[in-house]
Amino acid sequence: MEKGIFITFEGPDGAGKTSVLQDLLPQLEQFGREIVTTREPGGVAIAESIRKVILDPQNIAMDDKTELLLYIAARRQHLKERILPALEKGQLLLVDRFIDSSVAYQGFGRGLNAADIDWLNDFATDGLKPDLTLYFDINVEEGLARIARNKDRDVDRLDMETVDMHERVRQGYLSILEKEVQRMVKIDASQPLEAVVADALAVIKKRFFEE
Amino acid sequence: MEKGIFITFEGPDGAGKTSVLQDLLPQLEQFGREIVTTREPGGVAIAESIRKVILDPQNIAMDDKTELLLYIAARRQHLKERILPALEKGQLLLVDRFIDSSVAYQGFGRGLNAADIDWLNDFATDGLKPDLTLYFDINVEEGLARIARNKDRDVDRLDMETVDMHERVRQGYLSILEKEVQRMVKIDASQPLEAVVADALAVIKKRFFEE
Repeated sequence: MEKGIFITFEGPDGAGKTSVLQDLLPQLEQFGREIVTTREPGGVAIAESIRKVILDPQNIAMDDKTELLLYIAARRQHLKERILPALEKGQLLLVDRFIDSSVAYQGFGRGLNAADIDWLNDFATDGLKPDLTLYFDINVEEGLARIARNKDRDVDRLDMETVDMHERVRQGYLSILEKEVQRMVKIDASQPLEAVVADALAVIKKRFFEE
Repeated sequence: MEKGIFITFEGPDGAGKTSVLQDLLPQLEQFGREIVTTREPGGVAIAESIRKVILDPQNIAMDDKTELLLYIAARRQHLKERILPALEKGQLLLVDRFIDSSVAYQGFGRGLNAADIDWLNDFATDGLKPDLTLYFDINVEEGLARIARNKDRDVDRLDMETVDMHERVRQGYLSILEKEVQRMVKIDASQPLEAVVADALAVIKKRFFEE
């Protein structure tokens, strides 16, 4: 059986990852692989329970390290129950957020040590890395404006602290990009959706489906 | 303000830690310190929620690493909300199970890498170790027999796999004891309860309350 292909989608909020993923799916069918999309916690019951603890609005006392450890625990379970089985079946697996989100959000965003997060990611994944990571890059103002438009949110909620946090997250992704030159490819997500999808498709095609 | 004193109670199931702790409390009052006892998850709401995920009988698919990460996450939160505040107040803090339980149970018992568990414990505690760890040692048959007597359990449930697991846990504790010669003191828990309590009291008195 063919080896599976493991692609992750990463980027700051508002970069449009999810829309790109959706529009990309029908175009990926030309390659003849069974396609699976998932995202943490991905319908895995144990990971969903962990997610509930993370997101419970009553848990305001949650320490940053506790939060990180819970994300890592959910990642481990999702990996065992969803990612590894898909790869064993030779599927083309598209995962919305994975190890790099922890580095960008909990590391650069929250200020936890990046080397510690690398260690934890490695522990949870047994060192498995995606074959390809598409990083959808957008500047913070544009990203936040998109979120505000999409979700009918009050723009006043995007206060300075949020902008700072998102700026750090983006810098985190750009810093990963510098280190992961083989694995990670940057895509300009400020383009119109069709152009972003075309870029993503071209990268996938070139990497896995051309000699 | 005086520095707090941080003592942990460790040992395999059936060693009688909890009874010893209970009988020890009135005798510790002679030292004039405010005494606090706690155990993970220790009434900390977030840690309790995490514990629920660990213990949910429906979560049979839980991976060993997921379980370990959840214990570590609960430890982090319990440390921040209960242990550190008690130590800051200068209290005499007695904690039933802490870092060594993960090494003994998830490491030696379940077979996860001991160095990884040390790393995770360090990450969760920011390197904080107990001032003293009382290890209540008992051989596996005696410990399991006590559990069976105490809880009216059917002895048939203690099958060979359980005995093996408990044997590995005990070997784990003995292996920690060899490395942590300063921090950890072994107490013979096969003695009558009064003798075990007297031994524990003597160790605490000598370590912290004599010149």
